[in-house]
Amino acid sequence: MTAVPPELAALHERGAILADLGHIHALLFWDQSTMMPPRGAAARGDHAATLESVGHERLTDPELGRLLDALEPWAAEQDPDADDVRLIAEVRRDFEKAVRVPTSLAADISRAAAHGQAAWQAARATSDFSRFRDALELQLDLRHRYVACFDDFEHPYDVLLDDFEPGMTTAKLRALFAELVDGLVPLVADAATDAPAPERGPFGGPYAIEDQRRALTDILAGVGFEPDGWRLDVAPHPFAQRIGPGDVRITTRYDVHDFAGAYFGSLHEFGHGLYEDGISAHLSRSPLGSPVSLGVHESQSRLWENLVGRSRPFCGWALPRLAAQLPGGLNGITADDFYRGVNAVHRSLIRVESDETTYNLHIVLRFELELALIEGTLTVDDLPHAWNEGMHRLLGLDVPDDARGVLQDVHWGAGLIGYFPTYTLGNLMAAQLWEALRADLPEIDDQLERGELGPLKTWLRERIHAHGRKFPPPELLARVTGQELAVAPFLRYLREKLTDAGVLGAAPR
Amino acid sequence: MTAVPPELAALHERGAILADLGHIHALLFWDQSTMMPPRGAAARGDHAATLESVGHERLTDPELGRLLDALEPWAAEQDPDADDVRLIAEVRRDFEKAVRVPTSLAADISRAAAHGQAAWQAARATSDFSRFRDALELQLDLRHRYVACFDDFEHPYDVLLDDFEPGMTTAKLRALFAELVDGLVPLVADAATDAPAPERGPFGGPYAIEDQRRALTDILAGVGFEPDGWRLDVAPHPFAQRIGPGDVRITTRYDVHDFAGAYFGSLHEFGHGLYEDGISAHLSRSPLGSPVSLGVHESQSRLWENLVGRSRPFCGWALPRLAAQLPGGLNGITADDFYRGVNAVHRSLIRVESDETTYNLHIVLRFELELALIEGTLTVDDLPHAWNEGMHRLLGLDVPDDARGVLQDVHWGAGLIGYFPTYTLGNLMAAQLWEALRADLPEIDDQLERGELGPLKTWLRERIHAHGRKFPPPELLARVTGQELAVAPFLRYLREKLTDAGVLGAAPR
Repeated sequence: MTAVPPELAALHERGAILADLGHIHALLFWDQSTMMPPRGAAARGDHAATLESVGHERLTDPELGRLLDALEPWAAEQDPDADDVRLIAEVRRDFEKAVRVPTSLAADISRAAAHGQAAWQAARATSDFSRFRDALELQLDLRHRYVACFDDFEHPYDVLLDDFEPGMTTAKLRALFAELVDGLVPLVADAATDAPAPERGPFGGPYAIEDQRRALTDILAGVGFEPDGWRLDVAPHPFAQRIGPGDVRITTRYDVHDFAGAYFGSLHEFGHGLYEDGISAHLSRSPLGSPVSLGVHESQSRLWENLVGRSRPFCGWALPRLAAQLPGGLNGITADDFYRGVNAVHRSLIRVESDETTYNLHIVLRFELELALIEGTLTVDDLPHAWNEGMHRLLGLDVPDDARGVLQDVHWGAGLIGYFPTYTLGNLMAAQLWEALRADLPEIDDQLERGELGPLKTWLRERIHAHGRKFPPPELLARVTGQELAVAPFLRYLREKLTDAGVLGAAPR
Repeated sequence: MTAVPPELAALHERGAILADLGHIHALLFWDQSTMMPPRGAAARGDHAATLESVGHERLTDPELGRLLDALEPWAAEQDPDADDVRLIAEVRRDFEKAVRVPTSLAADISRAAAHGQAAWQAARATSDFSRFRDALELQLDLRHRYVACFDDFEHPYDVLLDDFEPGMTTAKLRALFAELVDGLVPLVADAATDAPAPERGPFGGPYAIEDQRRALTDILAGVGFEPDGWRLDVAPHPFAQRIGPGDVRITTRYDVHDFAGAYFGSLHEFGHGLYEDGISAHLSRSPLGSPVSLGVHESQSRLWENLVGRSRPFCGWALPRLAAQLPGGLNGITADDFYRGVNAVHRSLIRVESDETTYNLHIVLRFELELALIEGTLTVDDLPHAWNEGMHRLLGLDVPDDARGVLQDVHWGAGLIGYFPTYTLGNLMAAQLWEALRADLPEIDDQLERGELGPLKTWLRERIHAHGRKFPPPELLARVTGQELAVAPFLRYLREKLTDAGVLGAAPR
């Protein structure tokens, strides 16, 4: 063993400050989304920009580069799985990405995000794509300028993906998504019902918000929400964030006419929150103390929302609790009907309202279009037409207007290209992790049915959460499942559940 | 006119970042006091320390010193009242103070604050001064080390005062406080009643917290609380803070058995909030965009709590509104009894529970003791005895135990020595400002009685709030009142009101 170089303590100290700045940023965002009076918005923009610039300055400090240079030869001789070795590698990764992007381009990107979201909002409100096209053109131009800062990629889209899902490539995504489409299209054809279903499923209201909140609190307490270390608040666009160890904040929104949104949304955000809460204490004040990717993050939220929340045993556990809290007791619905109802398949125009089965076809469409835009085979002006064609091809739906079509999501206006695929990656990972989990915890169904969530949570924490950013996503998945990311577990899971619930292969209802 | 030096833009940019960091710090504190789950406390300490060190690093950056060196000759030729001239002077002041204190001492002070508060908490809980003495000894030692960083002072206590009340000196305070004691002691002797009064005055409950909140919201809306730009939340130790323009947050606490605390406390915090809200937009993202001193800040809160809130006309306006919101309608109390009740004078052991008339005697005691401790004429071990002697001399009370005596306030544990006098300075300034205000707004009583607060608020904003830190407190007061800080207006105000309310010179009740 060579002696530990003195630069390591300096790296830890700089890392702690970067981690703190990230957590403070999370608090600014949480507060803005939940508590801030509306007139505070302009100043909040300044605060976020200042924090961003302070952090960027520290991340690109040449002294940090010198520390890494000094530490890397030492790291090369250590156990490659040691925390410090991984820390050095991750900080190097962040440092290299940050120094390659000129400050002026970073400022342009930040300004365009605010401007693009405003343009998108105006366009969607009037369902008028022409009010969005220039902003989108600018976003594409900025992505090209951003990609040009790097040189070690096969496909320009790889550079964009890497910001959200380290280790993922365009080539891998194309193969995964092609297989997914092949599996999903016939499944949807078999499972989707266009027969008039009860308008809002088992959760149709009206339910007073206070009743919904009480029911949620009860369910969340049952799965592990601890008031000493968690908060639940209202936000127009729900999210989850850890401000620091012992401070996890999840959000939801309520619709009097449909409790399903708040219910499954909260389970989803609980999954995100549990991930961040489970990061090892000794990593949490360091650059390793964050979630490793959007895909892995989404795998945890989808696991709680769908693999747990829409499973037969968990539905059996939750139904009496919900019925006890909601007036009318969910109209005495049976466990079978409840389970079938929350797994119904409907083709729909809007991604965020779509069910677990059709959801990924919405993502496939966005991936295809992003790729064509970046490759230059699709122009911004042809985008609405291409959207509508894709919706028809993948989901058999005619898009009535752009507000319910190409203008439905904020992402592109904010410059987030390469982000959508991570939603589907999360779905795939969740199913794949669940297979590994089921092998390790053969009693899982019985445990879920009894509301015994300890073994599940321990498994997730030890295998995934605890590591933070220590292992890049492909390595993490391989360590846990012994496999590369694959489509088959997700398709197997869906087909089995839809069959079990009577959604697939049942007589028409 | 000489050309504007290019360094000015750089100073503005650095100033904006310092201001943003200050506002972010305010948000961390607000969140910690109102929203943060308890287990988040340790991480929040890290966040605050990181923000502090990032700000300190920027404030002591030698490049900032060079900018100031380059700008000062230019500033000397400009209108001395120009914003930029004052900005350069204030940043110079901050810079010089920051660079004189070694980082290691700053860190020791910060650590001792946390440790001292914990020691104080344990000592107060058991009413055992011996558990606090070492922490207090350390705080005194740190104050001496801090004072030793400076050299241009007459009395070491001046250095401590200057952090809270720029321009105030020990010599001036001694004279002011001596005059105050001479006026207050006989006034209290005449006005205080030891007869058993209705236990909690006109606001004795029980009142459900929801009812109190509704009544407060109604009163606050009447005085100018705007939900678009303000928040009201619960905090164990109420405070007010502006996070940025359009984002003012005040806090209160509720006691079911006494609405007076929440009511006058909210008016107090409203006054603080209004001050910060009124700072000119063009100053707010700069080091001039903060309140100028604790004394001026307190003058604004006390003005709303006492000069407005306990005045005959405002009581007349508020009583029917309160009676309409509180169940039982305040038992049909008359306006006269209400007015007399909220101005009753009682000698009491606890500063934060004391009335407007006796309050400053509590402060005088603390000032005397702080001075003796700093001068070395009083030892820490003799402090409890000196406290008890002073309470007897000034207020005629026997202190039953240290928890209700020398251990009642957190300030000394946190290292805040030189802070207490600003409470009394605020009271004095408020009365002095009110005399100037009354001369400018001869209709003020009629306006208060009708709830017409526009003219009052405009006067306060234009004369005081708008300027932020532009004018040091003595200059600000001279500009508004034409006078130096004095005791007479406060004594006049008290004597007149207590007479008018029937508290002074009335038959024993």
